[in-house]
Amino acid sequence: MTDAPRPLSGLEITECASFVAGPTGGMTLAQLGADVVRIDPIGGGSDHRRWPLVGDGDGAADADSYYWTSLNKGKRSIAVDMRSDEGRELVVALATAPGENRGVLVDNVVGRRWMSNEVLVAQRPDLVHLRVQGYPDGSPAVDYTVNAEIGIPGITGPEAVGSPVNHALPAWDLVAGLTVSTGVLAALYERSRSGRGAYVELALSDIALAGVANLGWLSEVAGRGSERSRHGNHVYGSFGVDFACSDGGRVMVVALTPGQWSALCEATGTAEVFAALATALGADWADEADRYRHRETITAILKPWFASRDRAQAGAELDAARVLWGKYQGMGEVVAEHRAGRHAVLADATLPGGAEAITARSPMRWNGDHGGAGAAPELGRETDEVLAARLGLSAAEISALRSRGVVAGPRG
Amino acid sequence: MTDAPRPLSGLEITECASFVAGPTGGMTLAQLGADVVRIDPIGGGSDHRRWPLVGDGDGAADADSYYWTSLNKGKRSIAVDMRSDEGRELVVALATAPGENRGVLVDNVVGRRWMSNEVLVAQRPDLVHLRVQGYPDGSPAVDYTVNAEIGIPGITGPEAVGSPVNHALPAWDLVAGLTVSTGVLAALYERSRSGRGAYVELALSDIALAGVANLGWLSEVAGRGSERSRHGNHVYGSFGVDFACSDGGRVMVVALTPGQWSALCEATGTAEVFAALATALGADWADEADRYRHRETITAILKPWFASRDRAQAGAELDAARVLWGKYQGMGEVVAEHRAGRHAVLADATLPGGAEAITARSPMRWNGDHGGAGAAPELGRETDEVLAARLGLSAAEISALRSRGVVAGPRG
Repeated sequence: MTDAPRPLSGLEITECASFVAGPTGGMTLAQLGADVVRIDPIGGGSDHRRWPLVGDGDGAADADSYYWTSLNKGKRSIAVDMRSDEGRELVVALATAPGENRGVLVDNVVGRRWMSNEVLVAQRPDLVHLRVQGYPDGSPAVDYTVNAEIGIPGITGPEAVGSPVNHALPAWDLVAGLTVSTGVLAALYERSRSGRGAYVELALSDIALAGVANLGWLSEVAGRGSERSRHGNHVYGSFGVDFACSDGGRVMVVALTPGQWSALCEATGTAEVFAALATALGADWADEADRYRHRETITAILKPWFASRDRAQAGAELDAARVLWGKYQGMGEVVAEHRAGRHAVLADATLPGGAEAITARSPMRWNGDHGGAGAAPELGRETDEVLAARLGLSAAEISALRSRGVVAGPRG
Repeated sequence: MTDAPRPLSGLEITECASFVAGPTGGMTLAQLGADVVRIDPIGGGSDHRRWPLVGDGDGAADADSYYWTSLNKGKRSIAVDMRSDEGRELVVALATAPGENRGVLVDNVVGRRWMSNEVLVAQRPDLVHLRVQGYPDGSPAVDYTVNAEIGIPGITGPEAVGSPVNHALPAWDLVAGLTVSTGVLAALYERSRSGRGAYVELALSDIALAGVANLGWLSEVAGRGSERSRHGNHVYGSFGVDFACSDGGRVMVVALTPGQWSALCEATGTAEVFAALATALGADWADEADRYRHRETITAILKPWFASRDRAQAGAELDAARVLWGKYQGMGEVVAEHRAGRHAVLADATLPGGAEAITARSPMRWNGDHGGAGAAPELGRETDEVLAARLGLSAAEISALRSRGVVAGPRG
């Protein structure tokens, strides 16, 4: 990491959001250099102790959350009693404070009239306001419910499984988070030219609908008039599948292009077999559609090659022929790779309670530099400094707010 | 849709990328108003006929790809022979053309020295250049290989399945696409203030590593020293799972907060059962960790309620109690909802070959407006107008380039 200024240095953002989507947006902007202040209720929001936890859920009741501390790293934390009028006024003042590089709010607030866009733009007409929602009407939805509704679990998993398979990764939440950061920066682009602010609403259900529509998957079902069948671990519409090696290791092998297919045939010594098979079947292996149609046959022909060598040997031979492949690993193996210094994007962190954590820098290398990951947050740790720097409150005023319980520091 | 100017109106971007990640970034920026020119080789890149296809892969050899036409909508298309020196000069000129709102390139190019960042910045020192890679060293990787390597398939799917379950959704590609749009706009933010350009490299493998690290999942495995067990369709660390209704319909029910849990108990008439069970087990249902630990027991108690009513009835009762839930649907049902006008984010499109498609507008509602989806692209359709508008070439010069085969229009 160099000392080069980060691209968003000087930009001030206020975040009042929880769980994955909104906080991922704020974290992304913080890692690019923005000063992001996350506002939480005193004692923490509903995501403050979300799993995974230090001690695996069997530890202290106030165990740090690996999730919360990682999704909110690099931000400053302020704790405010948002049930009180004074607390609400502080939140509105933070979101709408004057200044060219201020006036940016990310939230996932529902049903708080005092935080409606209307109320906020009355204070600052050029506010950039990004609001994450469940459904477009503001009603609640989460990653796992919208994923069910757009049909992904029906085409995930082994063909023999008759019921839906949920994804483990909250993919739509992550996509939504990066959509938030895109939206904030697009609105700032416009504001710097026109002086206009923007109210940008973003529903998780729309993220999922757009995601599958953009891949052409709704068109496909509409055109055919029937659902896509489950296809197990095969890559749809081309050739790609997993193979077991002699030592129990597994690899994912992919041939999307004719060149990748030739490399696979070469590595496995099957070029002549597939040439003869093309004639017998009337297939053209240079056409990925034929590779998909005959995927089970191709897989059956390749399987013994993998079964007769261990993963290290298979990998070396695949690499030598420039085959596109990856190994299946557990996360423990990823951790070991990190400890061996293999992944510049990963970083170590110490959580407020003292535990060690593994977190990430920005995946974007800015002129070669991932930047720092950002320090793990502690609830309310920057309450005083944020009130002083962003609202110009005096030490006496802050002390009075704390004694009345309107705001709180890290230990209440 | 209103006639309001889009936020990125006036911004010109050049894209030389294929498959999902880079093109999703460009499409996102196009939907926000940017003029995005996608450069392809004459005849199309390796993603030009990617599945799904019109006619389900059994139609004409030149059947439109629902995938390519949807991921590249709203862009202008130019076809260039990049094996020729003249073609290469045109690509470099398009990427580095002078002008305040130009000089932005998105690519996923590997190994073309004539398109190296060094060559490009020699032409335009303040270039904003976003490069999508497989691995950070530039070697190839795709969504399905990086997903295997970071361990997601090992924790996806039913507990009884012993082998990895790949995701069907190319989730990391989509996250990468929105990271591209974020990176472009962050670099423009900086350039407008400092005059500096940026070379931003983004590896799909780093996107995946950062994604799981940011959720705290690597820390968890490192802290416990063992892998997370597969947990089927359960939401990790809280309560959420699928239930079958009497008509075969299925619902995903989630209770992340104490309020959502109370609503679920109320809807299903199980409040007293769970109160008694809390005493018997020494559990606290307000603590999501206890809801997760006892997820199988909770599921077994709730199951008969769902099994004794059809999905419509269950849904009505869940809604009345404000339970957080979603229904499992096939994509055909999503299509039917779209045809009933239920989803403002979805849009109809006509592809160049005349087929109808379903595509999406931006999920971001900009002051209430999703904007238009953007027209489906046709390879080379805007070759002439782009050369004229961006490079100032005359009709005679363009005609000469076409007759020498350096560039091509929609029909060669």
